[in-house]
Amino acid sequence: METKNIGLRGIEVADTRISNIDGEKGKLIYRGYDILELTKNSTFEETAYLLLYDKLPNRNQLDEFNAKLIDARFIPKQMQKNMGNWRKDADPMDMLQAFVAALAGYYDEEFANKEASYDKAINLIAKVPTIVASWNRIRNGLDIVDPDPTLSHAANFLYMMSGKRPDPEVEKIFDVCLILHADHTFNASTFTARQVASTRAHMYSACSAAIGALSGELHGGANTEVMKMLLEIGDIEKVEEWVKKEMSEGNRIMGMGHAVYKTYDPRAQVLKELSRKLAEKTKDPWFDITEKIEVTTISEMKKQKGKDIYPNVDLYSASLYYMLKIPMDLNTPIFAISRVVGWAAHIIEEKFAEAAPKPALYRPKATYVGKYCGPEGCEYQTLDLRK
Amino acid sequence: METKNIGLRGIEVADTRISNIDGEKGKLIYRGYDILELTKNSTFEETAYLLLYDKLPNRNQLDEFNAKLIDARFIPKQMQKNMGNWRKDADPMDMLQAFVAALAGYYDEEFANKEASYDKAINLIAKVPTIVASWNRIRNGLDIVDPDPTLSHAANFLYMMSGKRPDPEVEKIFDVCLILHADHTFNASTFTARQVASTRAHMYSACSAAIGALSGELHGGANTEVMKMLLEIGDIEKVEEWVKKEMSEGNRIMGMGHAVYKTYDPRAQVLKELSRKLAEKTKDPWFDITEKIEVTTISEMKKQKGKDIYPNVDLYSASLYYMLKIPMDLNTPIFAISRVVGWAAHIIEEKFAEAAPKPALYRPKATYVGKYCGPEGCEYQTLDLRK
Repeated sequence: METKNIGLRGIEVADTRISNIDGEKGKLIYRGYDILELTKNSTFEETAYLLLYDKLPNRNQLDEFNAKLIDARFIPKQMQKNMGNWRKDADPMDMLQAFVAALAGYYDEEFANKEASYDKAINLIAKVPTIVASWNRIRNGLDIVDPDPTLSHAANFLYMMSGKRPDPEVEKIFDVCLILHADHTFNASTFTARQVASTRAHMYSACSAAIGALSGELHGGANTEVMKMLLEIGDIEKVEEWVKKEMSEGNRIMGMGHAVYKTYDPRAQVLKELSRKLAEKTKDPWFDITEKIEVTTISEMKKQKGKDIYPNVDLYSASLYYMLKIPMDLNTPIFAISRVVGWAAHIIEEKFAEAAPKPALYRPKATYVGKYCGPEGCEYQTLDLRK
Repeated sequence: METKNIGLRGIEVADTRISNIDGEKGKLIYRGYDILELTKNSTFEETAYLLLYDKLPNRNQLDEFNAKLIDARFIPKQMQKNMGNWRKDADPMDMLQAFVAALAGYYDEEFANKEASYDKAINLIAKVPTIVASWNRIRNGLDIVDPDPTLSHAANFLYMMSGKRPDPEVEKIFDVCLILHADHTFNASTFTARQVASTRAHMYSACSAAIGALSGELHGGANTEVMKMLLEIGDIEKVEEWVKKEMSEGNRIMGMGHAVYKTYDPRAQVLKELSRKLAEKTKDPWFDITEKIEVTTISEMKKQKGKDIYPNVDLYSASLYYMLKIPMDLNTPIFAISRVVGWAAHIIEEKFAEAAPKPALYRPKATYVGKYCGPEGCEYQTLDLRK
């Protein structure tokens, strides 16, 4: 049987100006800028502006953008009420996928207009955190905390979650997490967003679909799986034995290895240092356990297969969020809070690309390998003759 | 610039046993059977069974399948209530995308189990029509009509819409429409469903995403556009002039032409005859106007470009649904009522394919054409230095 383009690996499907991964050098570039520069010098809001508009904002542009984001943070009261009708144990990603699609029922979408698409992008970036935090309050029987217009995007989310304003160090850590997850070229959820947009569906529809893709355990669900692993191991003394046993049984170690990076994932590097800093503050054991998993997996991989392996973005984000007291099942929704920026930028690029080759409706080919009885099809048997 | 795989046309991404299009001969095959045979001899329920289970059911299997579908038709009262909170002028596709995602909040999803996926497929096939019909009643200020367990899938939908049991001829016409739209290999919505499922996301999530893709005017939205065109023309005497003018301006005629079929789309053939029959009954002008559009477009295309063109599935379905008194903006939701069968079958195939090559998470490559200042990225300017 001929080889198919399984998973589309290596198949170029479009041009993009949004981001680039250099898997050999371990670099991630947003619109020309190294993300390490952005985490050092920019905020999430500046980074969102950069990803959407292809330039870093000047002071006026940033002020205007911030004002729009802050205005758009509130979600409709009716949506809060509908949320209250959901099962309290529903998966937050299911809730998020449904309510992002539902935003289209509250806000008109002008399909053909690029400017209107930017407004919808801002609406989404502002509201996704509010939806996640509101749901977390509701499911815990707590009153919803209204957004605070004096707080940054990162601080406001943590405030809506807990009702307490975070200290500046924690705010900065969370802000950097949001910057790091904001885009990563054509990953599965972004490609889903682009594909839905390629039919000319609107932005809420495409982002809701992307949330569906992100919810899968092979994509955004992976950081939750890392935390489950950490809790299962529970003790630094048990790491070595646990990792060796898993690897000898041929199992993957969650959070280790990446299809694209052939060296240290730059996001993992930053997250590792943030996690170390936070653990010093909180005295949690999770950083040390995670680092031990990294070291053990690397040395076992070398021993068993003579190969290199590196942490991916999920390894250190899991424990980081846990130390920030974020419930484990919100790890993937938090990924969405950040990645929605990338989705929106890619949807706008998919719909309004100005240079050739322009994107087109994605319709790949499948190879039919099923029942075949000649070009006229199989002989039809009426119901009562069938066995 | 090198040519990219724009829109993935001609790129084989997976094996499938579900359906096959022979674009040269104008054949569409479901699991080995010609759809023309199925429309003549089978019901929608038998066809759904065939697409899901890779065989036509015997009497016992069909009875059991029907019973499960009938049992699953009801939607939760809470969902009806939440629907009532939506804006009455919301797009029904937005509503459908949101409420299909929301089904996950009511029904547990067992991810790893093939049998459970079949149960979810049945739940979706049964409930999508109820969601669409309930919304149509609610937005018109009418009481919801509960499903009638004595009616077929096709008849029950028309009954839930109008509160009246359809006559057998109308029931049969609608049943055939549902058979014809149930699958069409890797179209944009089905590929979206497979892509979301490839991350291991669950069936509600993947189908909700597919609804998003279907909503685009280049995909499922096209039949609504056809009906808008018919209403704009309004009179058979105006067809020739209208078509000639559009074509001389380089515009596509909606409902004409298809990327895959190089001859008459077999579905269009069946729909044309159904539409003719229905128009004889209802004395509507829409069949005649549509046929005139077909004839004029074909002859103009020949004259202007020396090329052949044929009607696609949307041309005759638009007027058919209109004559069935289905509101124009429900054309695409009705497409979803049928296509959800194909989505479900493809999601199950994507997740549980038994033969190699097995599908993998779809992650294509993009070509970065944006700002580039060397491997280290562009020089970062602090906020106050930016212009």
